Amino acid sequence: MREARIDAGRFLGRLEAFAGIGATPKGGVNRQALSLQDRRARVLLAQLGQARGFGVHQDAIANLFVRREGRNASLPPFLIGSHLDSQLTGGRFDGALGVLAAFEVLEALEDAGIETPVPVEAVAWTNEEGSHYQPGCMGSMAFAAGAIPERWSALRGHDGSSFSEELRDTLAALPEASMRPLGFPIAGYLELHIEQGPSLEREGIPIGIVEGIQGTRWLEVEITGQAAHAGTTALAFRRDAMAAAVRALDRLYAAIMPRDARARFTVGKLTLEPGAVNAIPERTALTIDLRHPESAELDRLEALIADAFAEAASAGGCAATLRRIFDMPPAEFSPSLLDCLGAAAKGLGLASKPMLSGAFHDALFINRVAPAAMIFVPCRDGLSHNEAEYVEPDQAVAGAQMLLASTLKALEAQGRGPLPVTGPA
Amino acid sequence: MREARIDAGRFLGRLEAFAGIGATPKGGVNRQALSLQDRRARVLLAQLGQARGFGVHQDAIANLFVRREGRNASLPPFLIGSHLDSQLTGGRFDGALGVLAAFEVLEALEDAGIETPVPVEAVAWTNEEGSHYQPGCMGSMAFAAGAIPERWSALRGHDGSSFSEELRDTLAALPEASMRPLGFPIAGYLELHIEQGPSLEREGIPIGIVEGIQGTRWLEVEITGQAAHAGTTALAFRRDAMAAAVRALDRLYAAIMPRDARARFTVGKLTLEPGAVNAIPERTALTIDLRHPESAELDRLEALIADAFAEAASAGGCAATLRRIFDMPPAEFSPSLLDCLGAAAKGLGLASKPMLSGAFHDALFINRVAPAAMIFVPCRDGLSHNEAEYVEPDQAVAGAQMLLASTLKALEAQGRGPLPVTGPA
Repeated sequence: MREARIDAGRFLGRLEAFAGIGATPKGGVNRQALSLQDRRARVLLAQLGQARGFGVHQDAIANLFVRREGRNASLPPFLIGSHLDSQLTGGRFDGALGVLAAFEVLEALEDAGIETPVPVEAVAWTNEEGSHYQPGCMGSMAFAAGAIPERWSALRGHDGSSFSEELRDTLAALPEASMRPLGFPIAGYLELHIEQGPSLEREGIPIGIVEGIQGTRWLEVEITGQAAHAGTTALAFRRDAMAAAVRALDRLYAAIMPRDARARFTVGKLTLEPGAVNAIPERTALTIDLRHPESAELDRLEALIADAFAEAASAGGCAATLRRIFDMPPAEFSPSLLDCLGAAAKGLGLASKPMLSGAFHDALFINRVAPAAMIFVPCRDGLSHNEAEYVEPDQAVAGAQMLLASTLKALEAQGRGPLPVTGPA
Repeated sequence: MREARIDAGRFLGRLEAFAGIGATPKGGVNRQALSLQDRRARVLLAQLGQARGFGVHQDAIANLFVRREGRNASLPPFLIGSHLDSQLTGGRFDGALGVLAAFEVLEALEDAGIETPVPVEAVAWTNEEGSHYQPGCMGSMAFAAGAIPERWSALRGHDGSSFSEELRDTLAALPEASMRPLGFPIAGYLELHIEQGPSLEREGIPIGIVEGIQGTRWLEVEITGQAAHAGTTALAFRRDAMAAAVRALDRLYAAIMPRDARARFTVGKLTLEPGAVNAIPERTALTIDLRHPESAELDRLEALIADAFAEAASAGGCAATLRRIFDMPPAEFSPSLLDCLGAAAKGLGLASKPMLSGAFHDALFINRVAPAAMIFVPCRDGLSHNEAEYVEPDQAVAGAQMLLASTLKALEAQGRGPLPVTGPA
């Protein structure tokens, strides 16, 4: 019986080849979704797939599927993958690691002549980054919804480019891909991705078993006071919007993250008006990025934030308003897939730890329609969305091995018994 | 013996007339320094002066002087005045009140036939506002220095206008004014101005006796941390420049103004980078406007500020830098002139209180070369640099009466005995 094995040299070579598509001088990639570089990467993946006799398919949003048949072609396939598009100054591993590991899994199964009970497909979801066109996770979002939202057809990039036209041209760039419906039943989904954070590296653990994705709320807070002269106006007469903001924020920085390791509280944007050195600010507008794996806790924290600003505004003769501008509920991944991941790591002798993802991934959307889970590997200094993004080769290979082992365990767990092997021993 | 009296109707009529020069639809004025409107106002003042037989003079920076002779023409004159230029959307009283009250004082002395021991001159200093060309207080600054700084000759407005050309044209607009040297000995200087703050109005006091001008320091603080993902980065790994800024500022808002009624602490500008809702800020740049009447205290507060940012930066894994971008030492006005003001208010039966000015005025610069002091009157809601700026007529008249009485007391106090009177009883 031939055991399926990741071919480390082949896999690392693929990473190198794709890193050349849209390469930047600083060693990263600029492969905007639906751009010429994105199409080059798709064509290359399709060609590699065809060379192994795999099927190549795409849907109306240009999600790209490379399919290795199983025993029963009519059963829902098991999907593995990630995304090929990047940030403007992105790293070579963010997304590409997961797509190329998925393709390497297909090649390993093919090399070993393993007949899987259902087809296994490597998928590259369209526009995960949301860099050129918003929102991000477009491909997986549309797949899960089974439809493309009307308003996307009118989207334009800030350079005037047309989303509809670039999508059409991207689809046309792969005439060899057969069209399939947008959204269809799948047996499950696994995604390998870099952590985009520093904890696996710092703790020296090669594998993160991702149990879910934090819920995210973006809030916009506006405090209004009264502009007045910085020199002449005594404290009693001030209605200082900045001072009120500071009072509330100091309280929140102390109350949220220090008390709950799973919470995230960030002020990423803040503006003052009128914005003159000698004018007491009359308006402060700021954003809050709030994350937690539990919806009830997100509600409680949002109320805490609203209270803090109401109190600070009132104490300072100001008024405060707060509104939610984005709300993504938490996602919990499939317990049975998580068991498979745990068993796979153990079987490979790889140390692992359970984690939450603080960032959005395609898996978040696929999780709405099928069992899903994610595997993380460390990235140097936790850096991502940065051309210096880096994964040690042995850690990349370990991730691909985890993906292969987990996929096999998932297929077994679906109750179809141990997998038969065909082909030379 | 004829007593000199302010002619309220004549004075208020002058305010009305000048409010028409550069009038804005909302009831304010736009009389930019050295503009056509500024020249119109100068010409009107010159004509009013000539009509009473007063001398009209200007210097190289276009400071305008209207002179009523005294007993001895060769002695240094006593100056009273303010500025005629305004903010873009300025009020009709800011500056004009003081110039027109000074002119009314000259007319009152002339009406009463009083012979003063030295000449008395009403002065309109050039470009006090620093609105079109910076810096402000140009005319008084150059007078005190006795020279025009080289670099001003190259100044351009943001609309491309040339300071040198507009200055030349402004001087040419008053051929009847005789040129005099820039800077000359004066016996003293008194300036009437609106408070530009709310305290006289709120306390129901008609006259502020201004004892000095607060020292002002403008500081630029920069905190640098590290940008990272708002969702994935746990607290221990954060180097959040905004959180560090908030920590320091919360401490400073509590430590400075609540403990000292004479201190002013304002954050007027703040920027974050990268400035994305889901990015932990890696850089915060902010300005601090710090004021106090004592230099030693300004030093102590600046050190307190530096400590607060150093501590907060260090606690948060960031670095902080602080630099002074502006430093105006405090000015104390002349004790003998202040005594004159106190006696004048008492003699008029006007309630008064000692005050500090939190804003710059021409008196700040004249104080460097001669005894100087200021008189404040209330303005509605403390508003200034605002077209809604307003002074009650009786309060404006009270201010002019104070200026007249104070000028007479100052001239007496200079040891030349009671003033003789000539002309009809």
